[in-house]
Amino acid sequence: MEQLKPSPPNNPPLTPLTFLERAATIYSDIPSIIYNDTVFTWSQTHHRCLQLASSITSLGIRRGNVVSTVAPNIPAMYELHFAVPFTGAILNNINTRLDARIISNILIHSESKLVFVDCSARDLVLQALSLFPSKQRKPLLILIKDESFETFETIETIQTNENGSSSSTVDFISTYEDLIQKGDPNFQWIYPDSEWDPMLLNYTSGTTSSPKGVVHSHRGTFIVTIDSLIEWTVPKQPILLWTLPMFHANGWSFPWGIATVGGTNICVRKFDAEIVYSLIKKHHVTHMCGAPVVLNMLTNSPDNKPLEKTVKILTAGAPPPAAVLFRTESLGFTVSHGYGLTETGGLVVCCTWKEKWNMLPATERARLKSRQGVRTIGMTVVDVVDPSTGESVKRDGNTIGEVVMRGGCVMLGYLKDPEGTANCLKNGWFYTGDVGVMHEDGYLEIKDRSKDVIISGGENLSSVEVESVLYGHSAVNEAAVVAREDEFWGETPCAFVSLKNGLKEKDIPTEKDIVEYCRKNLPHYMVPKTVVFKDELPKTSTGKIQKFVLRQIAKDMGPIRKSRM
Amino acid sequence: MEQLKPSPPNNPPLTPLTFLERAATIYSDIPSIIYNDTVFTWSQTHHRCLQLASSITSLGIRRGNVVSTVAPNIPAMYELHFAVPFTGAILNNINTRLDARIISNILIHSESKLVFVDCSARDLVLQALSLFPSKQRKPLLILIKDESFETFETIETIQTNENGSSSSTVDFISTYEDLIQKGDPNFQWIYPDSEWDPMLLNYTSGTTSSPKGVVHSHRGTFIVTIDSLIEWTVPKQPILLWTLPMFHANGWSFPWGIATVGGTNICVRKFDAEIVYSLIKKHHVTHMCGAPVVLNMLTNSPDNKPLEKTVKILTAGAPPPAAVLFRTESLGFTVSHGYGLTETGGLVVCCTWKEKWNMLPATERARLKSRQGVRTIGMTVVDVVDPSTGESVKRDGNTIGEVVMRGGCVMLGYLKDPEGTANCLKNGWFYTGDVGVMHEDGYLEIKDRSKDVIISGGENLSSVEVESVLYGHSAVNEAAVVAREDEFWGETPCAFVSLKNGLKEKDIPTEKDIVEYCRKNLPHYMVPKTVVFKDELPKTSTGKIQKFVLRQIAKDMGPIRKSRM
Repeated sequence: MEQLKPSPPNNPPLTPLTFLERAATIYSDIPSIIYNDTVFTWSQTHHRCLQLASSITSLGIRRGNVVSTVAPNIPAMYELHFAVPFTGAILNNINTRLDARIISNILIHSESKLVFVDCSARDLVLQALSLFPSKQRKPLLILIKDESFETFETIETIQTNENGSSSSTVDFISTYEDLIQKGDPNFQWIYPDSEWDPMLLNYTSGTTSSPKGVVHSHRGTFIVTIDSLIEWTVPKQPILLWTLPMFHANGWSFPWGIATVGGTNICVRKFDAEIVYSLIKKHHVTHMCGAPVVLNMLTNSPDNKPLEKTVKILTAGAPPPAAVLFRTESLGFTVSHGYGLTETGGLVVCCTWKEKWNMLPATERARLKSRQGVRTIGMTVVDVVDPSTGESVKRDGNTIGEVVMRGGCVMLGYLKDPEGTANCLKNGWFYTGDVGVMHEDGYLEIKDRSKDVIISGGENLSSVEVESVLYGHSAVNEAAVVAREDEFWGETPCAFVSLKNGLKEKDIPTEKDIVEYCRKNLPHYMVPKTVVFKDELPKTSTGKIQKFVLRQIAKDMGPIRKSRM
Repeated sequence: MEQLKPSPPNNPPLTPLTFLERAATIYSDIPSIIYNDTVFTWSQTHHRCLQLASSITSLGIRRGNVVSTVAPNIPAMYELHFAVPFTGAILNNINTRLDARIISNILIHSESKLVFVDCSARDLVLQALSLFPSKQRKPLLILIKDESFETFETIETIQTNENGSSSSTVDFISTYEDLIQKGDPNFQWIYPDSEWDPMLLNYTSGTTSSPKGVVHSHRGTFIVTIDSLIEWTVPKQPILLWTLPMFHANGWSFPWGIATVGGTNICVRKFDAEIVYSLIKKHHVTHMCGAPVVLNMLTNSPDNKPLEKTVKILTAGAPPPAAVLFRTESLGFTVSHGYGLTETGGLVVCCTWKEKWNMLPATERARLKSRQGVRTIGMTVVDVVDPSTGESVKRDGNTIGEVVMRGGCVMLGYLKDPEGTANCLKNGWFYTGDVGVMHEDGYLEIKDRSKDVIISGGENLSSVEVESVLYGHSAVNEAAVVAREDEFWGETPCAFVSLKNGLKEKDIPTEKDIVEYCRKNLPHYMVPKTVVFKDELPKTSTGKIQKFVLRQIAKDMGPIRKSRM
């Protein structure tokens, strides 16, 4: 047995990049991408990605270079998920809602050589480059034009950027379509030397102050891609509406997954409930992904007529309130709920549904579905451990610990941050920084990000549990709870609440009404001592409520002085 | 980037063994196995496999030892697919239809330490052990009892084997259930040190005279398992009827696949059309696998009433005649057709269906479906090359070449056969020994095993094409074509044909009728010069027609002397 070793016939590096040529063979004339009036087939997408890779290479991009994008879910964004790694380069998607300062930091930190810039982000990126130190080498820029984008300006009009620096330093060297047209459709794409070669670089989203560059390998991306297809039971030729930004953890791996099953990508630049409902109808959408706020948007919309045909939604990113899940499903969506982090490349824990749960009352069903669930097949272990001892906590649904995991989807590490990497990849585990409990049936439930735990009078309380109760109030649209300093209790919960539109005067709750409501539904120590009404809660581009903003507001309020309620 | 290396949190070895604990968590009380009146749940199967692994270990079995099975598709066979590798040992399933001499050779060649023997194979295995050279150390034997098996005898009655040797040397040391009862359900199973560690040893089936021991790693088995689930779009909780022997390439990886999706395994000791139709009805079967002969059996049965609910059948192992495919689908089966070898651990090429093909006439549909298709996602390349130059052949559907492939499902190699391994794993390819063409649309079609090509008057002709025409004859049940020596042409096709039951006298064709029929439907040089009628064609246990037997018969006939037709 000892003589039998891996060899080239059985050991070509795992990579999801091979899925595109396969899609072009099997699904050659099936639509790969639809965007407004643009329709591409898999055969065309295959050729376009090879042409683009050929042109990127001819710009001097080599194996291991970083190539960035700043773009919403347009066809170019999809193509770049193949075309950039086809050149051996590392794809770095940048969140379009970041400010110029952060984008500038990311481009410098990643040493990005080339940036694909959507026309809507043109000024933002030019501004980011103007913030570069004078001796810092700047990346080349490619402009992605879009005739359907209203404020579009042609490349010729770009003479100077907003800061008045000369155009020569910040010029776009080409448009996206020109690059494709010039490229060779018979380009031989660069196969990774090793399946551990880096393929993706994703900076964690802006909920923390110092973004980190998460690096994923070809192997990890291969595994999370097929993992997600199996977990969500994605059939052949699904129609996916891109309601999750591809710049957010690469759309949870579905750019490669949809090629695997020959599906159709419905691209959309910006979306609201009305657009989503109309695209579902027009294109017979079968699948969507999104943060729970997307579910909330769909259910609170005046367009929320029940669907003609079931649409499957995969949601994650924050524990969805049971009430929101319940409302979404009653419209004809089937919600699957999972959990992952930028560091895991996609969802790696899913609340796999049991048929027998269908017999339970609706609220109980929603409660079960709001749990994160069980590891996907690409992961080897997911556990909750006591941070002090490293031992597994009791499987009682109550004992809080840190969520740890081990498996093929975990990142290689953080770019240029050996300390940060060593802090979370240690003792054989990836430490997520998330706090959760393990239920008796082996289902994981996230209670909070570590820093979202509120410690009141020595009791740890989960802001998510308080939020969950707030979402059950008939007038509440969105809710978020953070800690506010309290001279007596140390910390007490501070609730930020936005109300539904169109409430009758008599239905608009006061701060006191909300507190009374919480008293009826929560242990006393968990009842918010402060309630702040907001027209809208501040959010990241992926719909996560920006708790750090709310924490700052709570801090600015100062401590509660006499809180012995 | 260079600092980012694989580490324990992201690099635990890939293995399908982790799927069982996951199934026991998610699908704890869902039936895992049903066999006559026996029903196990996933929770029970998980515990039983751990107990069994614990007992196997206590017998002295260690990492890297070989443990064999000689059993049909009974529950024990399923459990052993987890329990044996749980101990670090290598699972070696032995075909129950082999003779004692071959089984003896396999046990000696593999240095098997322990054999699980179904009661129906008891005498066979005892006889095999009696053929061991006197100084050869014999494996330990475990008897799998089965009360539902009619010729069952209790362990106590085994005193001497058929050759009269004393019971002490050949005794069964325990029964299967006793081992399980004695085992520890909290056994910590042995995780592979490397994902390249061997997990399976499968001797290639008896269509060639010298079986070879194909070794697969944990990694390869992981990849082919998820590959097959995605390719066949297996949903959660399918009901699989085990019409494909698990000893045949481990049932194409579905023992692990069904655990992944929490399905139910319907075990069956022996099957014919009547049993299959009754089990489909009783258990609401959704999925089946089998050689094309299974399709033939189902369609030619008097029980072949159209199904109440569609059953998906995955078939491979020989190119299925278009007529058989067509008849099977008209009964309500949905046939998927694929291709693989023992060396690939399962199916690695599948005839992925295109919706637009549904518009075509039935015969055209069947012709398209009889092609093998496109590589699955676990494979990197599948090609057809000219054996002399190594170059890809033209994609014209006509130019014949050898099928080669490269990818994660390819075996580690042959056990103790470096020459055999080097002969087929070379130049970065696995050389399959199969002959095929590549169609213009990128779909592979197997024309024959290399040795099944008939060279007549310098023209290569494919026996499969002749067989395909013979299957179109209304009186033909089964057909197989081999080369017969011909003094003028070198070789000419010799057809072996079995006829359908219950034909009216006037419908029974003569040799001349068959030849006439072929002349109308084939080029002259492809028409069989010899037609031999048989009541039944000789088959392997997996339903492959044993062409080497027919070749011997053709050889015994001697050459055709005056063949200038």
